[in-house]
Amino acid sequence: MKEVVAGVDIGGTNTVSGLVDRSGNIIATEKLITTDYPEINDFISALSASINRMLSKEKGLQLLGIGIGAPNGNYYRGTIELAANLAWQGIIPFADLLREKIDVPVLMTNDANAAAMGEMIFGAAKGMKDFIVLTLGTGLGSGIVINGEIVYGSTGFAGELGHSVVVPDGRQCGCGQRGCLETYASATGLVKTVLFLLSDRREDSILRGIAPSELTSKKIAEAAASKDSLALEAMDFTAEKLAAGIADAVVFSSPEAVFLFGGLARAGEMLFDPVRKYVDLKIMPIFRGTVKILLSGIPENNAAVLGSAALIWNKTSL
Amino acid sequence: MKEVVAGVDIGGTNTVSGLVDRSGNIIATEKLITTDYPEINDFISALSASINRMLSKEKGLQLLGIGIGAPNGNYYRGTIELAANLAWQGIIPFADLLREKIDVPVLMTNDANAAAMGEMIFGAAKGMKDFIVLTLGTGLGSGIVINGEIVYGSTGFAGELGHSVVVPDGRQCGCGQRGCLETYASATGLVKTVLFLLSDRREDSILRGIAPSELTSKKIAEAAASKDSLALEAMDFTAEKLAAGIADAVVFSSPEAVFLFGGLARAGEMLFDPVRKYVDLKIMPIFRGTVKILLSGIPENNAAVLGSAALIWNKTSL
Repeated sequence: MKEVVAGVDIGGTNTVSGLVDRSGNIIATEKLITTDYPEINDFISALSASINRMLSKEKGLQLLGIGIGAPNGNYYRGTIELAANLAWQGIIPFADLLREKIDVPVLMTNDANAAAMGEMIFGAAKGMKDFIVLTLGTGLGSGIVINGEIVYGSTGFAGELGHSVVVPDGRQCGCGQRGCLETYASATGLVKTVLFLLSDRREDSILRGIAPSELTSKKIAEAAASKDSLALEAMDFTAEKLAAGIADAVVFSSPEAVFLFGGLARAGEMLFDPVRKYVDLKIMPIFRGTVKILLSGIPENNAAVLGSAALIWNKTSL
Repeated sequence: MKEVVAGVDIGGTNTVSGLVDRSGNIIATEKLITTDYPEINDFISALSASINRMLSKEKGLQLLGIGIGAPNGNYYRGTIELAANLAWQGIIPFADLLREKIDVPVLMTNDANAAAMGEMIFGAAKGMKDFIVLTLGTGLGSGIVINGEIVYGSTGFAGELGHSVVVPDGRQCGCGQRGCLETYASATGLVKTVLFLLSDRREDSILRGIAPSELTSKKIAEAAASKDSLALEAMDFTAEKLAAGIADAVVFSSPEAVFLFGGLARAGEMLFDPVRKYVDLKIMPIFRGTVKILLSGIPENNAAVLGSAALIWNKTSL
């Protein structure tokens, strides 16, 4: 029998599942359209059918468990709670419902925590006990590992560094506060920064030819790569705010490394160079030089499935 | 045989030691003048003699270990490293030196971490797995507990929330940065706030009759208690900044409670009321109502000895 784990990444639009072996090889994948199932019971049926279909494709596979990354996924309770981007309202006892269909251990968390677990089991954080993963996408998610364990806190929702405040009374955040890190250090934040600079500065820029609704972090990174000075300034400003968030996280948990993951991290050295410079400048002196700023070691297209599966592998390999 | 642990609190001026039993009773105490021993070996000799003297006062005492709280005490290495307020320069292998004199387990950390351990073993955090202790003295120290363990991080120096930045480019901090939480939320910070308000406002205040060099957080708290409006405004401003620091700590680790300890915490409801109000206002909505702001449950005069002793009791009672 070959032991495998199912990794499931539930998103507002798509749900991607895969079977993952102990070495992080993905043996099969399937996709569901999340929005096709406004009733949670229908979704659970479709998901369990999908997992069983993948298991039947190869002989002798033994399912050890199912790991799930979902918006507002609660590790302690196995629930999805009050997720704004999903049709299922209230508190969904997701793990319990799924276990009624497939009787194996089911563990849940949110996508950023799953990314951190993936980094630890299959990625660049192998062997590290203290590190942080920041996922720089539309927002900024974070997964924090201390003493080799994901930090869930008393509520199960710990690790929301995107909502630490780096600019008091700063930009409006979707969470209801102002000045949260994710309003600056995310794809959306970078676009906002460019719009502000376009409003403030007189200099010419490639970006003046792009309608605000068409502006993306990718186009801004391309403009920066071609030495557009306004785009470069926007990258620098973003890096400075991200570094402020990292410096505050370091005084808290003194991680060995902070991994950057997701769309914005693809900007590469254009982002990493100024981030490292500003972290060095802003960090409390006793921590200077103690924390590495690294690119995630997990391939982005498989990250969610690997991370979710790692929730189970982390338990079984102990 | 009655099992006891020695708790030692090393300060820049005094070193207080005590023998502590499993229930947190202090059986004996002694004091050394730290500055009398500029040579570390002399201090180690005096400290071990002091501990042996306390042990000989009662028959049948068995020493299980020695717990030490010291500035820049490193838990992993048992060292005191680059402590600005102590005469012993460089990296002092304190635990090793002491074990040469008294052969029992020796554990070290800084005073704020010791306070957190004391709170968990003997104080108001009994049974809690996730909490934070903030010591509001001359500076702001913090001890962070996650999953029942003090957070030391990859360097052993984690938990420096006094140096998270709450006001970018704000007040000068002794650590070399600007806008650190402790420049606002500490006895020193409160005095600075009053001096600023005296410079800015026209209103009368009892505090205008006190020379700046004589101004203390105690006098300010007394003025606030007698409804001096400038003193009250200073308390409110301090509470707001402290709440900003707490709100950022909550998105990180989602603690069940934050305990306030030390001089400033003695201001009581004058401080706690506005802190609770501002935490409620500033906290990310999913954490609203999840974190208690409480007074430390450890008597202040015994806190350092109990906390240091708790380092050992925490290990032996497992």
